[in-house]
Amino acid sequence: MKPFTHLRQFDIPEASLRRLPIYYRILQEMDSTPGSHVSCTNLAKVLGLDPTQVRKDIELTGIVGKPKVGYPLTDLLHWIEDFLGWNRPKHAVLAGAGSLGAALLGYERFRNHGMEILAAFDTDAKKIGTRIHGTKVEPMLLLPAYVRRKQILLGVIATPAAAAQAVADQMIAGGIRAIWNFAPAHITVPPQVILQNEDLYYSLASLSFKLETRLGVQPVRERILICKK
Amino acid sequence: MKPFTHLRQFDIPEASLRRLPIYYRILQEMDSTPGSHVSCTNLAKVLGLDPTQVRKDIELTGIVGKPKVGYPLTDLLHWIEDFLGWNRPKHAVLAGAGSLGAALLGYERFRNHGMEILAAFDTDAKKIGTRIHGTKVEPMLLLPAYVRRKQILLGVIATPAAAAQAVADQMIAGGIRAIWNFAPAHITVPPQVILQNEDLYYSLASLSFKLETRLGVQPVRERILICKK
Repeated sequence: MKPFTHLRQFDIPEASLRRLPIYYRILQEMDSTPGSHVSCTNLAKVLGLDPTQVRKDIELTGIVGKPKVGYPLTDLLHWIEDFLGWNRPKHAVLAGAGSLGAALLGYERFRNHGMEILAAFDTDAKKIGTRIHGTKVEPMLLLPAYVRRKQILLGVIATPAAAAQAVADQMIAGGIRAIWNFAPAHITVPPQVILQNEDLYYSLASLSFKLETRLGVQPVRERILICKK
Repeated sequence: MKPFTHLRQFDIPEASLRRLPIYYRILQEMDSTPGSHVSCTNLAKVLGLDPTQVRKDIELTGIVGKPKVGYPLTDLLHWIEDFLGWNRPKHAVLAGAGSLGAALLGYERFRNHGMEILAAFDTDAKKIGTRIHGTKVEPMLLLPAYVRRKQILLGVIATPAAAAQAVADQMIAGGIRAIWNFAPAHITVPPQVILQNEDLYYSLASLSFKLETRLGVQPVRERILICKK
């Protein structure tokens, strides 16, 4: 049985990993005059979060603050960048240069957030040889060799669902160690490969459900009571 | 202080809401001959999950299974669809018809997953009046009136970060009750509005961190030990 690798546990809580970039964004908007400090209490207030939680998250980066003063703002920014690996861009390839692939190539700031897409791959002869947002589109067939030659570890999948598993297999054959999957497909990978699914249908399901609950379309509690009888 | 609304708790665990569509996809790939059944154990095995967890998730929909037999496959599909609201498409508007907006308009299956984007809005005169994947692009100025007239409750933001808050405000002024935000910006909304952030930088942070940990670039445990001294 193949495990669902993106559900596997890591040392750091997923929620903390998702909050750190939020702190980073808020910090960037704050006063950055040399010597200015920020406290967890302060940051927690802006975000409406629990200060203890914010402190725990920030301490994960290894930075040590001063009681009642907090952290030097520029230092904290640097510790978060370093912890998240944003100052060590990892080379990546993109498979699928359709409208979603093109949108991903347009995210200029990926480069400042730890990822640089070196090349895109597609099976469509019309796309091969063109450049999208400056990145060249290569024939899909060349993907494993390219990945191996450049020792690329990160692969982004933006193909149609039907092609996703085959593309993942090719990436892994070339040496890819982490896959960011945007195709709405259930793909399986060996245990040594990290898989992160970015499925917008799942996400929409959650939003749609919350909206219905809020509007009273979903009598959630009643349902559960009925179900438990 | 404005709360970070997407962190607010709902009755149903977020993780369950995200697993139900996964079950749905697997079920769709299974044998659908009339009368075929599926058990939680079976589904759990395919996904490498705990059967008790799968049972709990599925029971949320209200469906009642038969011991040792499980659920009729087609019934289970229907209960999940109904629970997630996929059979009740909600009208939506999209703000921002750039490459990401265009990619979202290309997600044909949103319609089968509870959302139908009726119109796109942009400030770019070159885009206004055109159609992207069949959806007309209207001037951004008309958004609040359009939303009000059509009584639309769901808004999707795919504008640049700098425009996101103003667009959210306009959506809310028109009566939008749930915002799906793809702009890499921290936006605030009143408590009655549901906000779901789909920030790819956050997501990349998590993937990048996991890859580094796996490769040994991140000596996580050592760091934490140092930090706790």
